[in-house]
Amino acid sequence: MIRVAVVGAKGRMGASVVQAVNDADDMQLSHTIDHGQDPAQINSDNTDVAVEFTVPSASLSNVLTLIAQGVDVVVGTTGWDEDKLEQVRQALANAPRADQSVFIAPNFAISAVLADHFAAQAAKYFESVEVVELHHPDKIDAPSGTAIHTAQAIAASRREAGFGPMPDGTVTDGGSRGQVVDGVHVHAVRLRGLNAHEEILLGNAGEQLVIRADSFDRGSFMQGVLLAVRKLRDGGYPGLNVGLDTFLDL
Amino acid sequence: MIRVAVVGAKGRMGASVVQAVNDADDMQLSHTIDHGQDPAQINSDNTDVAVEFTVPSASLSNVLTLIAQGVDVVVGTTGWDEDKLEQVRQALANAPRADQSVFIAPNFAISAVLADHFAAQAAKYFESVEVVELHHPDKIDAPSGTAIHTAQAIAASRREAGFGPMPDGTVTDGGSRGQVVDGVHVHAVRLRGLNAHEEILLGNAGEQLVIRADSFDRGSFMQGVLLAVRKLRDGGYPGLNVGLDTFLDL
Amino acid sequence: MIRVAVVGAKGRMGASVVQAVNDADDMQLSHTIDHGQDPAQINSDNTDVAVEFTVPSASLSNVLTLIAQGVDVVVGTTGWDEDKLEQVRQALANAPRADQSVFIAPNFAISAVLADHFAAQAAKYFESVEVVELHHPDKIDAPSGTAIHTAQAIAASRREAGFGPMPDGTVTDGGSRGQVVDGVHVHAVRLRGLNAHEEILLGNAGEQLVIRADSFDRGSFMQGVLLAVRKLRDGGYPGLNVGLDTFLDL
Amino acid sequence: MIRVAVVGAKGRMGASVVQAVNDADDMQLSHTIDHGQDPAQINSDNTDVAVEFTVPSASLSNVLTLIAQGVDVVVGTTGWDEDKLEQVRQALANAPRADQSVFIAPNFAISAVLADHFAAQAAKYFESVEVVELHHPDKIDAPSGTAIHTAQAIAASRREAGFGPMPDGTVTDGGSRGQVVDGVHVHAVRLRGLNAHEEILLGNAGEQLVIRADSFDRGSFMQGVLLAVRKLRDGGYPGLNVGLDTFLDL
Repeated sequence: MIRVAVVGAKGRMGASVVQAVNDADDMQLSHTIDHGQDPAQINSDNTDVAVEFTVPSASLSNVLTLIAQGVDVVVGTTGWDEDKLEQVRQALANAPRADQSVFIAPNFAISAVLADHFAAQAAKYFESVEVVELHHPDKIDAPSGTAIHTAQAIAASRREAGFGPMPDGTVTDGGSRGQVVDGVHVHAVRLRGLNAHEEILLGNAGEQLVIRADSFDRGSFMQGVLLAVRKLRDGGYPGLNVGLDTFLDL
Repeated sequence: MIRVAVVGAKGRMGASVVQAVNDADDMQLSHTIDHGQDPAQINSDNTDVAVEFTVPSASLSNVLTLIAQGVDVVVGTTGWDEDKLEQVRQALANAPRADQSVFIAPNFAISAVLADHFAAQAAKYFESVEVVELHHPDKIDAPSGTAIHTAQAIAASRREAGFGPMPDGTVTDGGSRGQVVDGVHVHAVRLRGLNAHEEILLGNAGEQLVIRADSFDRGSFMQGVLLAVRKLRDGGYPGLNVGLDTFLDL
Repeated sequence: MIRVAVVGAKGRMGASVVQAVNDADDMQLSHTIDHGQDPAQINSDNTDVAVEFTVPSASLSNVLTLIAQGVDVVVGTTGWDEDKLEQVRQALANAPRADQSVFIAPNFAISAVLADHFAAQAAKYFESVEVVELHHPDKIDAPSGTAIHTAQAIAASRREAGFGPMPDGTVTDGGSRGQVVDGVHVHAVRLRGLNAHEEILLGNAGEQLVIRADSFDRGSFMQGVLLAVRKLRDGGYPGLNVGLDTFLDL
Repeated sequence: MIRVAVVGAKGRMGASVVQAVNDADDMQLSHTIDHGQDPAQINSDNTDVAVEFTVPSASLSNVLTLIAQGVDVVVGTTGWDEDKLEQVRQALANAPRADQSVFIAPNFAISAVLADHFAAQAAKYFESVEVVELHHPDKIDAPSGTAIHTAQAIAASRREAGFGPMPDGTVTDGGSRGQVVDGVHVHAVRLRGLNAHEEILLGNAGEQLVIRADSFDRGSFMQGVLLAVRKLRDGGYPGLNVGLDTFLDL
């Protein structure tokens, strides 16, 4: 059994992690820590892997504490910049255990990470590629960070394959062609009832390839969180690792 | 057997009509007329319905000639304005037969006409509605005239239902949210391999309705053309009729 | 303000109704009744419309009580047969108020009801029609009752339009062509992550129309429940009414 | 310029290849050979790569002739079995040039080959996977050979990942759940207007990944044919190569 601690256990994501750990046959909860509780209760004697899902203002401090306690950490909190990442790297260099790991992911939905990866691979073989992302209407930014990342990955693949600009005979447009990210048109739909969805369309004469990732609810992150927990427990990822594709055999 | 004449028989659309008439069990070709040939060869003795698919500069003259010959006309040529339509109405008022018909349609694809109609009906029951149209990259205008028409029909339905603006919390956007037509966001994708496609997405809390029309090639217009020929032959549509929904029992 | 009572308020559906009523600007909760509590607390002095979401074994008794109390009733519980419906009709014939209403719906998701309706209308104009329903893998029956209903409505439309069998050159098949319901092929997909979805595909030469309804969660029923409550309050539906399309202006 | 000969130049596929070669900036036609003409006109002095699209009864003989002439061959004709492939291997072992190549592909649509490949990769990370293939109604076999291949590749990935059977609580079914290929449910839709399409649906709690390949017409094979011609000309593929993924950098 993998002993898992959850930091931020009463937050929306943290509570989902607690439930996912309880539901997993190969895991058991060691600690649940929330606001006002000391994460230093977690240590390498009572816990194998800690999952940290709090807020950007608290996350770095929590992670540094957990590193000092000799515990591997899976981090789902957002808001990491290079300065913060460097502090994590230095802490890991001085960690109690030689092969200690921290894993940070901007997106734990396996479908989204695979869609992004496949889109970049496929982009080398299609004349046209566009990205449509669809989210609930309360989202503040458009397009999503994920869609921008996908568009940039597509653009990089096209450059590598020696493609020039995509065919586009549009002469008259009042804005319907969307935002151009690194040469790739990105469209954002906002619709009540949706959660987070991304569709990549790739076209050649006579054929189309469509890759679509649907995240219907928070549960979509849990497979990725559990995968990360298992991989850190199995070992082989010393130091700081970023991005769920670290663990995908592609 | 319905005797059908085709005017513009060597054009791309006209040639498809010739083939569709030949393939139809209940029709036979009476005349095929092209550039340099006189449409006045067609008359009420040899033809029941003429199908006119030429160019905007020739179409009005052809239609007036056919009206004078006592023939019902199905018109697929584009470029009609109110002045031209009025000339057709006056010619019909003085036509040889009392119940003579002219039918003009901007779009003969039944799937597109139905999608437009259903979207307007459904729009009364959903908090959010957006339109995505997808075409081949050689198309000059964006969004398509069909998508603009659909958006306007959706907006009219929402007003009738007493809806205010759709929910949209977007704060930061670089153009990905598309063109706003009468309050409805419209997105245009251009992709090699596609022909003409429209998708209407409607959302409420917890649910989505998607209506999609795909026109894969010119063949998509032929069911609509044959339907119009049959309906004019059956009678009951004296005068000028515009739009394929005239014949759909909805 | 419409005064709404909820019977079965602690059940999964009932609890969602309680929340939806609390969230609606034009409604207020009058009573919440659950197992062991007497629905006769609800009467025409304190309540305009009662929503009944319990279990088949309790529903008829609850509805008869509410009718006797002079209250209009929206019923979401399943399991109604002709014998039970007849008891409701007789109770309504002797109800305290002359124009008293009971409304029963097998499906409150507006998207599903519209998809079914549109599919039947469109089926008169397409050579081929097939139905694909997709659900979570814990569903016991395949295909869904909704998909069977849609297939039957499509078949009825085709008969009315004079269509013969659909084109199908399949010679060799090991079962992949699905279940044939009244001449319409129905396919059932079971996939973890999905909830309840139905897609109707209609095809002619060169064109396709796709109508898809997605129910992502229980929230998908609430728009339909609130619509029914408002319609019963507005009046004009005396007696027993079945099916959400009663209230849709199509 | 790559000098390309086409054997079977008047067949439907061959004629498309002739046009695609004429349209390609880096290729020129050297010979077009059809029924009754001797493929031995093609040799290493006048041609770099021959494309063979004929019929199963003629293909082996053509390919052996072209090998003896010292020409690399791209073969699109179907109907190859191990005995025929072995004859090709032996001919190549005695070919005039040491690094001579023959390339045979069951499917030249890049979108279909990528969809198959991505589905197999992704299948290691999802609890549920099903395959839906959609074709025109004149297709004789159901499901398609491509769908069977995809299902088998998914099944192999799942075994490798240690997955047991997929979750499926279906108790009552009249055939709607499709054909089970190696544990994977495969559904076949037949619809007028469609050509050849495949959709793979993968689901976990809260998320879905959909991969869809659309082949709208014969043109969908041409990108794959031209890719193969260029790769054989560039060299590095001596001997017999089967399957378009040979040339895809995945």
